[in-house]
Amino acid sequence: MVISYTQGAGKYKNWIIAENQFSIYNQGKFETIFSLGNGYMGLRAATEESYPGEKRGCYIAGLFDRFDGEVTELPNIPDFIQFDILLAGEEFNLMEGKVISYNRRLNLKEGILIRDVEWESPGGRRTKLTFKRFVSMADRHIVCQKVIIKPVNYSGPVNITTGFNGQVTNSGTQHLIEGNKRITPNGDIYLTTRTQESDVILVLAAGYRFLLKENGSENEINLKHRIRTGRRKILLSFDFPLEEGDEFSVEKTVSIYSGIDIEFNKWEREEVIVPTALDNLGRAQRKGFDLLFEEHKDKWARLWKEMGIELTGPDFDQLAVRFALYHFLQMTPTHDSRISIAAKGLSGEGYKGHVFWDTEIFILPFFIYTFPDIARNLLLYRYHTLAGARQKAKENGYRGAMYAWESARTGEETTPKYGHIDPVTGKPIRIWCGDIEQHISADIAYAIWYYFQVTDDCNFMYNYGAEIFLEIARFWASRVEYNQMRDSYEINDVIGPDEYSEHVDNNAYTNYLVKWQLQKAVELADWLKERNKECWERLCQELEIVEEELENWEIIAEKMYTPLDKESGLIEQFEGFMNQKEIDLSPYRGKIGSILDDMSWEEVTSSQVLKQADVVILLYLLGDWFTRDIKKANWDYYEPKTLHDSSLSPAIHAIIAADLGDIETAYTYFQQSCKIDLGEDMKSCDDGLHAASLGGIWQAVVMGFAGVRLTKGKLRINPCLPRGWQKITLKINWRGKKYLLKIEENRVKLKDFNTGEVLMEERKVVLP
Amino acid sequence: MVISYTQGAGKYKNWIIAENQFSIYNQGKFETIFSLGNGYMGLRAATEESYPGEKRGCYIAGLFDRFDGEVTELPNIPDFIQFDILLAGEEFNLMEGKVISYNRRLNLKEGILIRDVEWESPGGRRTKLTFKRFVSMADRHIVCQKVIIKPVNYSGPVNITTGFNGQVTNSGTQHLIEGNKRITPNGDIYLTTRTQESDVILVLAAGYRFLLKENGSENEINLKHRIRTGRRKILLSFDFPLEEGDEFSVEKTVSIYSGIDIEFNKWEREEVIVPTALDNLGRAQRKGFDLLFEEHKDKWARLWKEMGIELTGPDFDQLAVRFALYHFLQMTPTHDSRISIAAKGLSGEGYKGHVFWDTEIFILPFFIYTFPDIARNLLLYRYHTLAGARQKAKENGYRGAMYAWESARTGEETTPKYGHIDPVTGKPIRIWCGDIEQHISADIAYAIWYYFQVTDDCNFMYNYGAEIFLEIARFWASRVEYNQMRDSYEINDVIGPDEYSEHVDNNAYTNYLVKWQLQKAVELADWLKERNKECWERLCQELEIVEEELENWEIIAEKMYTPLDKESGLIEQFEGFMNQKEIDLSPYRGKIGSILDDMSWEEVTSSQVLKQADVVILLYLLGDWFTRDIKKANWDYYEPKTLHDSSLSPAIHAIIAADLGDIETAYTYFQQSCKIDLGEDMKSCDDGLHAASLGGIWQAVVMGFAGVRLTKGKLRINPCLPRGWQKITLKINWRGKKYLLKIEENRVKLKDFNTGEVLMEERKVVLP
Repeated sequence: MVISYTQGAGKYKNWIIAENQFSIYNQGKFETIFSLGNGYMGLRAATEESYPGEKRGCYIAGLFDRFDGEVTELPNIPDFIQFDILLAGEEFNLMEGKVISYNRRLNLKEGILIRDVEWESPGGRRTKLTFKRFVSMADRHIVCQKVIIKPVNYSGPVNITTGFNGQVTNSGTQHLIEGNKRITPNGDIYLTTRTQESDVILVLAAGYRFLLKENGSENEINLKHRIRTGRRKILLSFDFPLEEGDEFSVEKTVSIYSGIDIEFNKWEREEVIVPTALDNLGRAQRKGFDLLFEEHKDKWARLWKEMGIELTGPDFDQLAVRFALYHFLQMTPTHDSRISIAAKGLSGEGYKGHVFWDTEIFILPFFIYTFPDIARNLLLYRYHTLAGARQKAKENGYRGAMYAWESARTGEETTPKYGHIDPVTGKPIRIWCGDIEQHISADIAYAIWYYFQVTDDCNFMYNYGAEIFLEIARFWASRVEYNQMRDSYEINDVIGPDEYSEHVDNNAYTNYLVKWQLQKAVELADWLKERNKECWERLCQELEIVEEELENWEIIAEKMYTPLDKESGLIEQFEGFMNQKEIDLSPYRGKIGSILDDMSWEEVTSSQVLKQADVVILLYLLGDWFTRDIKKANWDYYEPKTLHDSSLSPAIHAIIAADLGDIETAYTYFQQSCKIDLGEDMKSCDDGLHAASLGGIWQAVVMGFAGVRLTKGKLRINPCLPRGWQKITLKINWRGKKYLLKIEENRVKLKDFNTGEVLMEERKVVLP
Repeated sequence: MVISYTQGAGKYKNWIIAENQFSIYNQGKFETIFSLGNGYMGLRAATEESYPGEKRGCYIAGLFDRFDGEVTELPNIPDFIQFDILLAGEEFNLMEGKVISYNRRLNLKEGILIRDVEWESPGGRRTKLTFKRFVSMADRHIVCQKVIIKPVNYSGPVNITTGFNGQVTNSGTQHLIEGNKRITPNGDIYLTTRTQESDVILVLAAGYRFLLKENGSENEINLKHRIRTGRRKILLSFDFPLEEGDEFSVEKTVSIYSGIDIEFNKWEREEVIVPTALDNLGRAQRKGFDLLFEEHKDKWARLWKEMGIELTGPDFDQLAVRFALYHFLQMTPTHDSRISIAAKGLSGEGYKGHVFWDTEIFILPFFIYTFPDIARNLLLYRYHTLAGARQKAKENGYRGAMYAWESARTGEETTPKYGHIDPVTGKPIRIWCGDIEQHISADIAYAIWYYFQVTDDCNFMYNYGAEIFLEIARFWASRVEYNQMRDSYEINDVIGPDEYSEHVDNNAYTNYLVKWQLQKAVELADWLKERNKECWERLCQELEIVEEELENWEIIAEKMYTPLDKESGLIEQFEGFMNQKEIDLSPYRGKIGSILDDMSWEEVTSSQVLKQADVVILLYLLGDWFTRDIKKANWDYYEPKTLHDSSLSPAIHAIIAADLGDIETAYTYFQQSCKIDLGEDMKSCDDGLHAASLGGIWQAVVMGFAGVRLTKGKLRINPCLPRGWQKITLKINWRGKKYLLKIEENRVKLKDFNTGEVLMEERKVVLP
């Protein structure tokens, strides 16, 4: 098998994902799942040598640029990973000659990517090569690479060419403009460039170190360089005459800074940033690859101690959970609250680095329970982008804060207006999400409330959360439409979570969440009045809130149109859904998006087909509101109509299946989630990780099987492990305290995380 | 051998260049030498399938775009050549599986590129594939491709995906912005895009035709498509279940238009251009691949009849000459006088499509003697860009027309300001050519006079040529500096043809040519006064020429500083050259540019080392002015100091060696010229053809060995063939008449081209 999940042994058991055989057709997959990062930057795992179809990529969180006429995206920064290697005049490339052995592996425990290759050149020369790289968790500006070359059956010159190549694009779109390239007196190089529209400077500096191991002892050697330049490109080329059996190593240390880095806290000039980058490079180089790696590994060890989930059960499940946690920490800009998590993390160009509801509904729960400080940071992003949300509301004729469906640095709407071509009309399909997929504002409010419930972080609410929450409530109050005939408030012409329906009236998910949010807004106001009058008065003043407004919210919440058929228990996804055409979905199951090859967009949107969980996710988020019977009825109705063409769908189905006691189905959906990125389908994630789906994996484990659930202001733990799972250990923060949770044979053992003291041991636990 | 020159047999003898073995390391070479074109567009020969290091490229003559902070260049237009081919689920790519046989060949006679491959997939499936393409000479907007697929040992589905991909860049620089993509009701596709700065619209339309040959009979079949889109990208995907032994063909016809095409003659709108492109596509599709190819082949046959050189001698020499002529016709925008020939033709991105003195001094002579109308068009380019030249003069404080060293659409200076990094200082080297390589203005004047002498095209002189010529003379008169000490006019701080010296005073080449030009300007004025008083008066009025100005030119010409050491006969390349440091050039010979890896720019420019012919080219252009002894003395002095690091150098050395009677050396240099692009060095021309060097090949044959020379207003033909050449036949236009020239055993037989009547047969011929 090309991908191996079982290579790790001993202390690395279920920590290693390996690629055992190289093929250019699998590049996208491994570039994505093997991506490295530290929340500041994300580096796709393109190989040192170049292949057709590769997508070299490295992105800096929050560094956006917009090409004229397109939507803003994370520019691919100059490539520094490429090494062109000539072995006795023959270029190292796996597509020529013969691959004798190949193994590339990502070590999730230590955050390092290692590749071992033994290769025979077309000329018959055999060489062992090892490639190592990591993106430092200890110093977010540092990336280290090491290449080790050992000729097996020949002596000859080795030539290495590597440096910076700023001729990169985002699938053809150029964001970087010419800056400076220089060699410093000590032989370091640097390249500066600017983004063409956002005008952010980027500085990359690199230093090289060469080692020769002969007769068992390793010594540093000095090599002369030649310079190769092109536009936005500076490479150094080195020659060394290598003897058979000796081992030659190159260490390349790269230091990366941008003009909007948090430490500068303003738009800093090149004259300041270049010396900063060179200084940091110098410091790193004095430490060297090995020490830098120790620091990096230590940081990962501390993170795993805080967040690790230990699972006694199928090895793949354990690995998949670690894979999710590992990528959470790589993709999340924990250092900077001005930015949030992109839908693909920092692992690819899909969705252009934009932030969706994926963060709040799918990923945030992990952080809320595991690293509440980071969760807080992520919510602060919505505070920093309030201006954008207010602007959007205003432009649409509403009040308060209407959040962007796709959000980037400023919070303004960044959803593209057009997508793929309709096979019937021959014209591009209009994407309406940015206009009418409005539930995101409710989702953000939901996340704030959730965070507040779990953490009790009153200060956050006073200073930031309440303002966002109230502004969203105000938006909804201005958004709803009063229907005199029914004496109800409605929300017409929207898209719900299921994006295979659009321009629908009264999407149940949206309406229910709005009802909930307006109720909570009134509760929040009452709570503030009681707990922090000063804060409330400030908010009233700043936001010009008057009592009548709160009363109005109460009325709207009460009269919100939230249908539920009493007899059947069914919630209609939107008005008229149940009258739409039913179609045979069997040809399209498991083939994501294939329905759009056959049917026009118009046909799809007018049929009873769901891209993803819609009513089903409502049953999850507002679980307290619905009886088991209602959940079951709606599951039975909607589940067969759902294609899961969105990666957001299976994990939610896993949780509801678990709620319904159908652990087998829950486990099937859990596994489906795990396989979206990590599975054997080599074309599943070329454009980047499905961050929300990774969040879903964690939720399926913790909310689903471990049965951790916030309900009526309390934390209930009511586990029900899948058949193959014997034991699971997790860490949970609840209202300022950290717990260690061991679940074995569906019994919960609750310990104090710090002291190890056993606090409870029961079938079911409720924490007040 | 990878490259074969001898594959052509029978009527294709010495017409075929072949690649016998595929390697990704040779891609640049073959993409360039196998490029196809028709003067409107040039298409690099990237393969249908994709490989690392490929440079897919297609350029439209004169369609420039400038990215902010860079110099203007020819944007790479959307790729249409790529075909992704799945054979029973396995992707066709030569780097996987096994290549059983491979042959790709360019047919110079018919302008078609054909590739035959037999390939065994990793899964053991054997398939024969043939790829054909041509860029129509009969309709400059049309490109045709055909792919033929024949499974040898299996039956299975074949899948083809191809369309337009506008995600192309020029080494990372983006010129194309999002436009429209559509499918028409009859299944054709089109893509529109605009250049980001020059705002020129580009329209590409394509249609497909499928054929199935079974049991010996071929029939057209219809296939359903699926659509794949991305930004600036539209692809169609087709499936067909293919049986072992049957043959499946796809024909793709592409129609390409731009908003600045000569037929529109203004900046036309998309609403007009799209229908034009679709109409033309429709017309072409009705003809089909075979008929379109017949029309294309006929056009080439007519061209070869007009320009062909037949050579009885070494096969490679014949092939090399044909290679040069073939590419002249591909790279020259014969249809549009607003543009001229780029230094790399339309075959690559080197020198960014800019026009240098290469056109006038190296390539133009071919057109003057072979297609005088095209030569006229090329000179008109300088007329159309007079405004830019006047502007440049003005900006530099001069009068008249100071032509740009590198010229694009408008004639304004487009030379980049900085180049490679100096290994000593670590900083980019300032490129001064755009500021001070001023001889180009004299070169253009020289070319006008040359054209006029050979063609007697008085109307050209009256309407265009005289104006350019006088404006250049005026520039020089304002440019020269009077040296009171020597009572001479000097030109200080320039770069001569040899670019390894800069900021030199009194470059001999420049000064001699300026002296010549000012003399001729006065002559021209006298001639105009006598022949066309009206024209002269108009010019005097428009250009505000007064008699004193002419007198001044005469004085400057007389007193121009043009040193020649009477004793030695040596002409010092510039003042002080002979005092510069002499260095050992042997490590750098034959390794182009390698001296700059070792020495700083400062060292190189202060040594006695020549990049290329400088005094030697002067001896050629003003051959009448120097005795054989002077030529010999200067040859002996400069030739050993010349690295030929410019491709402009060897052919000129071939001609002077021939003039000196050293035919063996001349032949060596001729062969060196032939090999610059066509030779076995696989890294010689990745960035495009050396157009001037191809011109040099023609000049070495015609001016050198055939001894055709314009001298004192007459055409002298004094051949001296290399040892291995028995016979050569050429066609020469002279003063309105076309001649057929046969040279055998160094005797000249002169025939009337049209009637075949023998006019002269002598050792040496002089035509008045």
